[in-house]
Amino acid sequence: MKKVTVIGLGVMGASIGLAIKKRLIDVRVAGIVRREQHLQQALKMRVADEVYKDFNSEAFKADLVIIAVPILSIIRMIEDIEPFLQKGTIITDIGSIKGLIAEQASRVYGKEHTFIGSHPMCGSEKTGMEHADLRMFDNAPCILTPDVSTDPDDTEKLSSFWKALGCRTLIMDASLHDRQISHISHLPHMLSSVLMNFGCEQRKHYENLLDVAGTGFSDMTRLAEGNPSLWTDILEANRKNIIDSIGSFKEGLEEILNILKKNDKERLFNYLKRNYERKIDFENFRKSHKIKDIS
Amino acid sequence: MKKVTVIGLGVMGASIGLAIKKRLIDVRVAGIVRREQHLQQALKMRVADEVYKDFNSEAFKADLVIIAVPILSIIRMIEDIEPFLQKGTIITDIGSIKGLIAEQASRVYGKEHTFIGSHPMCGSEKTGMEHADLRMFDNAPCILTPDVSTDPDDTEKLSSFWKALGCRTLIMDASLHDRQISHISHLPHMLSSVLMNFGCEQRKHYENLLDVAGTGFSDMTRLAEGNPSLWTDILEANRKNIIDSIGSFKEGLEEILNILKKNDKERLFNYLKRNYERKIDFENFRKSHKIKDIS
Repeated sequence: MKKVTVIGLGVMGASIGLAIKKRLIDVRVAGIVRREQHLQQALKMRVADEVYKDFNSEAFKADLVIIAVPILSIIRMIEDIEPFLQKGTIITDIGSIKGLIAEQASRVYGKEHTFIGSHPMCGSEKTGMEHADLRMFDNAPCILTPDVSTDPDDTEKLSSFWKALGCRTLIMDASLHDRQISHISHLPHMLSSVLMNFGCEQRKHYENLLDVAGTGFSDMTRLAEGNPSLWTDILEANRKNIIDSIGSFKEGLEEILNILKKNDKERLFNYLKRNYERKIDFENFRKSHKIKDIS
Repeated sequence: MKKVTVIGLGVMGASIGLAIKKRLIDVRVAGIVRREQHLQQALKMRVADEVYKDFNSEAFKADLVIIAVPILSIIRMIEDIEPFLQKGTIITDIGSIKGLIAEQASRVYGKEHTFIGSHPMCGSEKTGMEHADLRMFDNAPCILTPDVSTDPDDTEKLSSFWKALGCRTLIMDASLHDRQISHISHLPHMLSSVLMNFGCEQRKHYENLLDVAGTGFSDMTRLAEGNPSLWTDILEANRKNIIDSIGSFKEGLEEILNILKKNDKERLFNYLKRNYERKIDFENFRKSHKIKDIS
């Protein structure tokens, strides 16, 4: 791989640039931004070797093009960059839903260009290039969503790229991705926002409720600080799966509610202990950087 | 204040000892532990100036006695230490429920001794003296629960003590404490455990679901690692309030579910944006260390 082009140098795109410059020192990074100010900032921060404000054949002379913009812009961008794409370039994105994006790529590119969706499971509540972090991808799962027509060699190339940046990669179907991510990422995000809402709304009954909130409440509402406009698009795009996830989670709440209502101390202890052990196992698994494919 | 006696030198009790030795350098700390090993460790770590393995009049010659043991042990301890308590000593605890404890103190001490409950809203998932942290109390809210018969001067003395350790203090009735804490601390704890349970149970449908979990899921399940036996006691003691909290939270989930089902993008955006702004305000408030009484 000689050159990677990153479209959009926000916190994620710029982190990709920094990580490439650190981990893949022979690879040239091209960045595409909209504003002159960001072009200058990118060169100053060395997140890219060359930065463009428009689409041109030079910018797209790359082995890999990464679309690192918000979801609805990805959908549009897939179409907008089509005239500039070169034979043999792999195109990917980093959006947190994959079904809609895969459909659009298939519609626009057909068999002309190789598109494989990526979803690195990391990020920041902060937006903007200045919050870029070259360690953003360390040990993060990164899901790749090739389809049946994808050449396995291309999937392997993309997988190697993300691994070089620090990720462990997993391969799965785009629609399976969306269902799993709904459970494991979008649901937690919703819960965080609903808890923030709950804490504030309950001030009707307990005026200074938030004054007594400690680190537990603070950690559980961290995700509520995610960019509302980005998240509206994500949730809308994955709406049906999220409705299912919230429904299943409500059943989970019902279970613990029953245990409490029955005052069944033994079941309560077993419930807490089981999930305490699972949490420890889960964090140990994360620390072990284990790479597994779950196609 | 010349001497503070801390009963129990686990992570919380030992953190109190360390914080006193750092922030109130003229105050002597006595510790009471059960095992010889912990006595030696406490002296070695300098969490206390004197350490005892039994109750004796020397150990209780103190301006303040802090019961820093699990909830059910607090209830027992209130009774067990009674014969050793001296006139003029203020007794407190650091349990995360206050109603039951206040009842027990009132029953055992009557007007003989001054008991005022404390609840510093901080802690660690880790247990044991070795995880003690002298900065544990920095900016943590600490709720004091005097009753109608408490001398305001004694409440003020206890409040000054916690402030010296880095807390901001709030005063409220024990039963109001339990209702508020149910919403702002026990509910988040339950949600964290239920989410961990959900993630694991859903592996029936998505075998490797946890492999794709990123920092969001990890943060949202942090509290699930709380000690199951301590938490069983807390949840049982505050059971009725927690049942109410979970019920109200479920209504909150219903609201967002309706927004999603109606595909009302504007309302979804407004919901996320409102809670995004509230989260930012909340964290700014926490940073401001503002001290408010909400009696």
